[in-house]
Amino acid sequence: MPNMREEALQLHIENRGKIRVESKVPLESAYDLSLAYSPGVAEPCKDIFDNPKKVYDYTSKGNMVAVVSDGTAVLGLGNIGPEGALPVMEGKAVLFKSFAGVDAFPICLNTQDPEEIIRTVKYLEPTFGGINLEDIAAPNCFEIEERLKKELSIPVFHDDQHGTAIVTAAGLLNALKLTGKKMEDIMVVANGAGAAGIAIIKLLLSMGVKDVIMCDSKGAIYEGRPFGMNPIKDSIARITNHKQAEGTLEDVMKGADVFIGVSVAGSVTSEMVKDMNENPIIFAMANPVPEIMPELAREAGAAVVGTGRSDFPNQVNNVLAFPGIFRGALEVRATDINEAMKLAAVHAIAELISEEELSAEYIIPSPFDTRVAPRVAAAVAKAAIETGVAQQEIDPKQLQQKMQAESTR
Amino acid sequence: MPNMREEALQLHIENRGKIRVESKVPLESAYDLSLAYSPGVAEPCKDIFDNPKKVYDYTSKGNMVAVVSDGTAVLGLGNIGPEGALPVMEGKAVLFKSFAGVDAFPICLNTQDPEEIIRTVKYLEPTFGGINLEDIAAPNCFEIEERLKKELSIPVFHDDQHGTAIVTAAGLLNALKLTGKKMEDIMVVANGAGAAGIAIIKLLLSMGVKDVIMCDSKGAIYEGRPFGMNPIKDSIARITNHKQAEGTLEDVMKGADVFIGVSVAGSVTSEMVKDMNENPIIFAMANPVPEIMPELAREAGAAVVGTGRSDFPNQVNNVLAFPGIFRGALEVRATDINEAMKLAAVHAIAELISEEELSAEYIIPSPFDTRVAPRVAAAVAKAAIETGVAQQEIDPKQLQQKMQAESTR
Repeated sequence: MPNMREEALQLHIENRGKIRVESKVPLESAYDLSLAYSPGVAEPCKDIFDNPKKVYDYTSKGNMVAVVSDGTAVLGLGNIGPEGALPVMEGKAVLFKSFAGVDAFPICLNTQDPEEIIRTVKYLEPTFGGINLEDIAAPNCFEIEERLKKELSIPVFHDDQHGTAIVTAAGLLNALKLTGKKMEDIMVVANGAGAAGIAIIKLLLSMGVKDVIMCDSKGAIYEGRPFGMNPIKDSIARITNHKQAEGTLEDVMKGADVFIGVSVAGSVTSEMVKDMNENPIIFAMANPVPEIMPELAREAGAAVVGTGRSDFPNQVNNVLAFPGIFRGALEVRATDINEAMKLAAVHAIAELISEEELSAEYIIPSPFDTRVAPRVAAAVAKAAIETGVAQQEIDPKQLQQKMQAESTR
Repeated sequence: MPNMREEALQLHIENRGKIRVESKVPLESAYDLSLAYSPGVAEPCKDIFDNPKKVYDYTSKGNMVAVVSDGTAVLGLGNIGPEGALPVMEGKAVLFKSFAGVDAFPICLNTQDPEEIIRTVKYLEPTFGGINLEDIAAPNCFEIEERLKKELSIPVFHDDQHGTAIVTAAGLLNALKLTGKKMEDIMVVANGAGAAGIAIIKLLLSMGVKDVIMCDSKGAIYEGRPFGMNPIKDSIARITNHKQAEGTLEDVMKGADVFIGVSVAGSVTSEMVKDMNENPIIFAMANPVPEIMPELAREAGAAVVGTGRSDFPNQVNNVLAFPGIFRGALEVRATDINEAMKLAAVHAIAELISEEELSAEYIIPSPFDTRVAPRVAAAVAKAAIETGVAQQEIDPKQLQQKMQAESTR
């Protein structure tokens, strides 16, 4: 696409950005003004002061998500700062709205200090129903998310971690159905110990995977490795690689059932795929160029291949997860997006593809399948209610139907 | 209006608040997605990283105002906290959009510490083209505004101070035309030493008024008054009340030409108006009940009366000022809203009423006069260019015409 650069710039310039704030109420007359603003607005203000939970009834908080970034890990561009990150965060807001009817607003912070980011987001809490952390570099992203989850009473979700993990796990569930393997039995090798890689591993462990080895640019991570460790890798080493395997990515991929790449272009060769167990499953999600191109991987014997790209089958795209997850969490006024809600999203995405439809080229739904967000939202809302983090009960089936009806694409 | 409470609550509940975030770009196809989000969005990101000023071209920053409050001085309700304040800030955002096409977003902060507010707003700067401070109690509001004006490169404007001051000053300009008096000659008494009162006094002094006495609940403020002073009142005492008058409001109003009330209901009597100079001008802006009711003031000899209420003539309503002021400032990418820009707004509002139209019942335009915001914006943009705070030059006349055409009411 030779003109993509020009077209993308043109789209952004001619609209002066991608989001706008609109009024939901009429303002045609002095009487309208007296209801929406002074003096009528004092009534909801007083009611909220008397009963803070009513802020969900009288304001936009209950459908409003902050997309928060410090600009340290933007797309593949790295640390380009808060202004540079703003087009991405506006784009994210557009996706929230288009895919699940969620109002979302970009908050690009002029600080990269985790304590300052935590403090700022805490101060911002009254306005928002949820916090989507975005493009914040590891390892800061882990501490920021963990602390905010504890210290805020609204849901906090770092999409680069969990969005990717949820969609990957959904794809893996379906790939295992095709290959007749079980979570308990497979050996998984993951390459790339950043935010996404670590979240994927943790999610798979919670889903029953027993045998995982995580690699970074220095090879397999194991307890006590004398080089290139940090507190996050230490904690990963404790819960993975029980046989304490050492060596390169190539070494540890021998006999593996699943490769999960969130690393760099070209780090997997045909030989490495051939050395895996039979019917190997490959998620080669480096962007824009995968760890191994799908065609090459299939030729080398891969049973199923997923990538991050829209021009290949089985695109692992976060947009399958975050819009519906937040909509579901917001609709029940959830105080958290917990593991049960994430797992509910995994299964909702995976189960959208029926056994008859399932094939090596179709383990993950299309991002434009309008059934995805309604189903994810319903499943997440149900899980929130069941695990006691919902402040309001709704009928998940009704939510799904309502969202399906809202969907215009 | 016996049903106002019910109708106001109903309006807020049925819409779940008053604002929503909308996409300005299409998102119908995978190609749309690739331009608005990954991978196309990387192009504006890279350009902004190379040239930070381009954030105004590629994002919504250039038309986006944060309406920032800590909830300490909300309407007449006082310190009701950030959640309680949210309906007002959403209402303000609705006014920004409806009156001047400005995108505005409520930011209700969970802190009332001025240092923390300053710090937080600094971190928020990348996303916004301007900061509207709202309903922050005196004296913190003064320090917060002053510091932010210095430390941010986008315009900062505390509407409770300057919005009220600008509209009052515009009304006074016209009232003086009617009564044949001059700024230089009048004696002004202001009651209420809060944010609005102090801003009004400072603005009138900059417009040529020489003789001002400010009162608080303890009477006239003068240098060295041994009771009820604070640093703000000390500074006011130094620039007003040159004759060091002492006494009650009643004492100092004797012989005054103008009374400006931003204080409490009923603090002015007919007798006090009768003791003023001939053809006195009264701005009785206590809400919802004025310092003196307009009818009573007129009977006592007032030549012109303004209030804060929509059901009397000459309503001093900030909505005449802030939407156009920010639109003008944003259109030229102003780094400040300076005194010249505020004065330009004063004159634009005052001059909207022609000499033939001018009467004691019509010194201030209606809030619903659609000519106001375009004229204010054009005048403010022109003043910004002339005083060197504009980062981009535009034709103010064209801006006015464009806004007039956009206006749908």
